[in-house]
Amino acid sequence: MTAPLSSAAVAEACDPQLLDDLVAANRILSHHGVLDAYGHISARDPRSKDRYWISRSMAPALVTAADIIALDLDGNPVRAGETRLFFERVIHGEIYKARPDVMAVLHNHSPSLVPFANSDTRLRPMTGNAAFLGEGAPVFDIRDVDNEGDLNICTRAQGEALARALGGHCLVLLRGHGSVVVGESVRQAVRRAIIAETNARQQIQATMLGPVHFLTASEIEYAKRAKPKDPDRAWQLWKKKALGAG
Amino acid sequence: MTAPLSSAAVAEACDPQLLDDLVAANRILSHHGVLDAYGHISARDPRSKDRYWISRSMAPALVTAADIIALDLDGNPVRAGETRLFFERVIHGEIYKARPDVMAVLHNHSPSLVPFANSDTRLRPMTGNAAFLGEGAPVFDIRDVDNEGDLNICTRAQGEALARALGGHCLVLLRGHGSVVVGESVRQAVRRAIIAETNARQQIQATMLGPVHFLTASEIEYAKRAKPKDPDRAWQLWKKKALGAG
Amino acid sequence: MTAPLSSAAVAEACDPQLLDDLVAANRILSHHGVLDAYGHISARDPRSKDRYWISRSMAPALVTAADIIALDLDGNPVRAGETRLFFERVIHGEIYKARPDVMAVLHNHSPSLVPFANSDTRLRPMTGNAAFLGEGAPVFDIRDVDNEGDLNICTRAQGEALARALGGHCLVLLRGHGSVVVGESVRQAVRRAIIAETNARQQIQATMLGPVHFLTASEIEYAKRAKPKDPDRAWQLWKKKALGAG
Amino acid sequence: MTAPLSSAAVAEACDPQLLDDLVAANRILSHHGVLDAYGHISARDPRSKDRYWISRSMAPALVTAADIIALDLDGNPVRAGETRLFFERVIHGEIYKARPDVMAVLHNHSPSLVPFANSDTRLRPMTGNAAFLGEGAPVFDIRDVDNEGDLNICTRAQGEALARALGGHCLVLLRGHGSVVVGESVRQAVRRAIIAETNARQQIQATMLGPVHFLTASEIEYAKRAKPKDPDRAWQLWKKKALGAG
Repeated sequence: MTAPLSSAAVAEACDPQLLDDLVAANRILSHHGVLDAYGHISARDPRSKDRYWISRSMAPALVTAADIIALDLDGNPVRAGETRLFFERVIHGEIYKARPDVMAVLHNHSPSLVPFANSDTRLRPMTGNAAFLGEGAPVFDIRDVDNEGDLNICTRAQGEALARALGGHCLVLLRGHGSVVVGESVRQAVRRAIIAETNARQQIQATMLGPVHFLTASEIEYAKRAKPKDPDRAWQLWKKKALGAG
Repeated sequence: MTAPLSSAAVAEACDPQLLDDLVAANRILSHHGVLDAYGHISARDPRSKDRYWISRSMAPALVTAADIIALDLDGNPVRAGETRLFFERVIHGEIYKARPDVMAVLHNHSPSLVPFANSDTRLRPMTGNAAFLGEGAPVFDIRDVDNEGDLNICTRAQGEALARALGGHCLVLLRGHGSVVVGESVRQAVRRAIIAETNARQQIQATMLGPVHFLTASEIEYAKRAKPKDPDRAWQLWKKKALGAG
Repeated sequence: MTAPLSSAAVAEACDPQLLDDLVAANRILSHHGVLDAYGHISARDPRSKDRYWISRSMAPALVTAADIIALDLDGNPVRAGETRLFFERVIHGEIYKARPDVMAVLHNHSPSLVPFANSDTRLRPMTGNAAFLGEGAPVFDIRDVDNEGDLNICTRAQGEALARALGGHCLVLLRGHGSVVVGESVRQAVRRAIIAETNARQQIQATMLGPVHFLTASEIEYAKRAKPKDPDRAWQLWKKKALGAG
Repeated sequence: MTAPLSSAAVAEACDPQLLDDLVAANRILSHHGVLDAYGHISARDPRSKDRYWISRSMAPALVTAADIIALDLDGNPVRAGETRLFFERVIHGEIYKARPDVMAVLHNHSPSLVPFANSDTRLRPMTGNAAFLGEGAPVFDIRDVDNEGDLNICTRAQGEALARALGGHCLVLLRGHGSVVVGESVRQAVRRAIIAETNARQQIQATMLGPVHFLTASEIEYAKRAKPKDPDRAWQLWKKKALGAG
């Protein structure tokens, strides 16, 4: 377990830009309806990869910089005395352990993803910017671990099983619950979550029109080695709308 | 029938926190579109279980603390002279009579519940927080009592039949009309109504994708003995949004 | 044709309450998305039944009392010199001629009604307050009169055919175009139009769930002789929201 | 390639009304959700038909008159030194080359068009004002040119192929991507894009009700020779809503 740092050391530990992005992410995702009163987004600390930054247990729409705290990968607060912690923080720690490439984790109840979480129809990419969905998002069924419960991911065994279901994917659906999205950065995870919600609505609409033409395998492969063009344009617009022009 | 109290006695009778919750509930449900210009929510008086608190007959979006009055379980105003009473208040009284465990009753025309009220497809839980829907919400058909009418629940016979249809459930759909939700508290009834509307939309979407995987029987059973985690977080956020930050 | 009145006489001719309702109707219907930049609502003059009040040709969202003018049933302005007249005003005149009971006519492009206008599936009542839809809204096909055109109702022959398609109904759908709603008052026509849009969305949702249970014949018959309970509650709330609290 | 003009000459070259329309178009389309953080609209210069006006590469919601620049039909900035150029500007140049009648080009990711872009069901006109969709919008598949990529239109070969797919139509869908709309004016292109989004939603809804009755061939033909009635009414209302009343 990580030894507690002094207050000053912790404050220094969080990069100001990362802190700003994490607060903006909470507000943007709330503004888009991807996060409701629940759900959470974290950022792995780029300088101490065995810890991550996340808000205290609270509604994402209300998060400010003062609410961002550091946890180690077992979910213990780095600064002693923190007690308002998300029940489901194990999601973040176990994914960071299993996926060294992941720098941001987002758990949400994005409304149009739930139908796919409870269906055999896979969520697949409708557009180029949804290529991260690959050949279809996997679905995690908590019954692989527990046969009853409130479907929340609260134990290490549940978190580990979820991380296994995620595998090398960018998004995993949780039956009867929601989804988890990962990214190389906070901004990428936010972008993916917003695109996934739109993609889900469009895929449902398209299903009503007949057989759906998804991205091809080569288009999906291409996206793995290419960067999206100018993703920050969307981030800045979303931030401006969510936080106001002030 | 309950004897009228003096004005001061009635004012004292309503717990300030309960009064505050009841006003907030009217605003929150209007803000979410669960209540339109009609519909009503009541709270049984915890200290006088043969009466309940409800607004005068008015649009829920406009309710203030001054509009909350007490009725006995036969729908008579506790304070003499009150005349602006909901036509359908019999819903509340008959359910409180039949269900001693119920402390809050909400009648609404929540838009996405009507399709289920007019269908043989049962409204079933898509997510853990909708487990209160159990194996499917029952549907009350007013034709069990009356073969014609405007489908409103205005007579004691109609109210009793509705309470029987509700049985031990948390939500009953009303054919051609809407729904009634009950709870152990105002906050729980509000929470259930908001979740039910979301669940209905998600179930319709999922139906378009193929067979739907609902909560399992053991997950539904678990929810009967477990408390939801931190439900007040949503209540406080909803209240803030509905009433403004002031 | 009605002889032009002096300016003062016309101003006196419009009842202030009717004028207020007509302005509010334009704003409420725009606020609900039932009217877009086009569409119009009129009120027959209760004291001169051969004329009706309607706005000049303009966006309904911008209508004020100063924009309301009187036309005779052939669509001629009562006050000489008015030139900004709706192209489709023949809809109003021909329905007022054919239906002495009608005191308000509304033409709109209410978005969820168009799918029913272009389908063999009839728009039927899902709830008690939609009983005015009867056994299903009729559909007017302008090809009964003209085999080509922009589908607008601009000639007397088109207006007469539309009035015949409406018959004794409260709402007629126009293939490839929208709908016309009538009422005994402005408020009733507005109420019916808002309910029809909601009903259409709910009927489409219910269709996805399986066979739909509509109001029964006896419930539809009942509504013809019974008044709705407290319809002004919705009107006042809608007006407050559309016009602001000022 | 066009020789660079002096700064003053370029400023003079853009008609103030056209500049005003182009800025309003960006705002209106953002306000309607037809444009998100990406997408772009251009206007061919009526006095120099080998150039067009378009914003710098930025979010359409933020465009002001100062952001509008001139490009030649090969996508080179008329004023030397401009570097913030849309990656996909080749769409505009190649369509202007292929279609001398076109005076405005709009590329968007209008959400309800994507399901049609990825389906064999053609987008067809539901209402008279959507007659520009003809017998159905064509679909451009970038695989006709490139078997992999991010599906953006960035090369001349891609732009030329897109222009061929558009042919004489007013709107072409882009598989896995969005759409391109053209018009005789900025206002017409905007109008068509907004109508197309509504039409798509209505066609999907109608598909759920059974066989859909689209505009007839003679109605589609009629629209080619007739002007819409009072299209500026919608433009002025949209502009007022998007830009505020100030």
